[in-house]
Amino acid sequence: MTNDPLIHPILQQSFAVIDAEIGEHSFTTAEYEIIRRVIHSTADFEFKDLIVFSPGAIEGAIAALRRGVPVVTDVSMVKQGISGLLAKTFANPLHSAVERVPVATEGKTRTEMGLLQCFAEFPEAIYAIGNAPTALLALCEVLPQSPIQPALVIGAPVGFVSVVESKAVLAQQNVPQIIIKGRKGGSPATAAIVNALILLAWQPEN
Amino acid sequence: MTNDPLIHPILQQSFAVIDAEIGEHSFTTAEYEIIRRVIHSTADFEFKDLIVFSPGAIEGAIAALRRGVPVVTDVSMVKQGISGLLAKTFANPLHSAVERVPVATEGKTRTEMGLLQCFAEFPEAIYAIGNAPTALLALCEVLPQSPIQPALVIGAPVGFVSVVESKAVLAQQNVPQIIIKGRKGGSPATAAIVNALILLAWQPEN
Repeated sequence: MTNDPLIHPILQQSFAVIDAEIGEHSFTTAEYEIIRRVIHSTADFEFKDLIVFSPGAIEGAIAALRRGVPVVTDVSMVKQGISGLLAKTFANPLHSAVERVPVATEGKTRTEMGLLQCFAEFPEAIYAIGNAPTALLALCEVLPQSPIQPALVIGAPVGFVSVVESKAVLAQQNVPQIIIKGRKGGSPATAAIVNALILLAWQPEN
Repeated sequence: MTNDPLIHPILQQSFAVIDAEIGEHSFTTAEYEIIRRVIHSTADFEFKDLIVFSPGAIEGAIAALRRGVPVVTDVSMVKQGISGLLAKTFANPLHSAVERVPVATEGKTRTEMGLLQCFAEFPEAIYAIGNAPTALLALCEVLPQSPIQPALVIGAPVGFVSVVESKAVLAQQNVPQIIIKGRKGGSPATAAIVNALILLAWQPEN
């Protein structure tokens, strides 16, 4: 990996510090690649105990990225955090839900409305939700009726209102998922999960 | 504030939870507005003990925002996190250093090179550095030679390499500053500091 231009030397050095400090764990190699990148993006080792993978979620996401499925984010900051690496690798279509809805109506949030628009168009996409619990709840409400399911749902809103609840609702869905438990999450952590998945998919041995 | 369209009801509810859980503190009202918004953006109460303000930093930043100084960020995610509220209020020019430099050269990072370009053009700006310690170090190196000083430097890179060191160098500069100590920081926390300053400046009583 040292000569891989997708991995900046500073990132390599950061990963070495995390490797030295993370302590014992029982993650698979692929799970650890994801967790390490989240810790790198937040400098917060608590994420070691917060990230949950459903069986086959990583393998399914790798296959989906390789076959070019769209990636849908709830907000622009998550999209911004993914766009560089995605453009240099698989160049899958990348959509931000909130950018589709200039004005909220009917008591709904812009992210919620935009997310439902995206799901109507790309039900097979990878959904990376790092901020808006309303968007995650809206997605979970329409999932059971859809014949086509997302390749992956990343449930990582951050905050104090409806956040924990939205992750609990996602956990009950029969869809491949990666969840950051509790109140924590956010754009950098969510983008880190997607970027780690992109790098895993870019390595032919995975 | 309840009827202020700049403060979403969900944000209000989040602030109420933080108010109830923050415990005792001795922050000024303005300092607390900033700290609370950082905690809201990260769901991480540790920031309560990490944010340091130099004397007059908040008042100087409020005055600078009102007179229209540019805001310069190191990376696009910080810019993205500020652009919405800034556009709805003072509409100051907003620049992302990294976006000015398509390719890194001479062993320097894109953010470092872009930051120096911005400082040459807008030395009086508010600098919000949430990711790249190289950019913060480069700024600190040219600061002492400049006759015009920034209105504020926010030193909040996140991570494991040169991050703590870059904040220590900023702390030695005679420039108005807000620092997030230690390894933590990042785009949402940095954008939260700027957004809180914008709202403080937007209230005529401050």
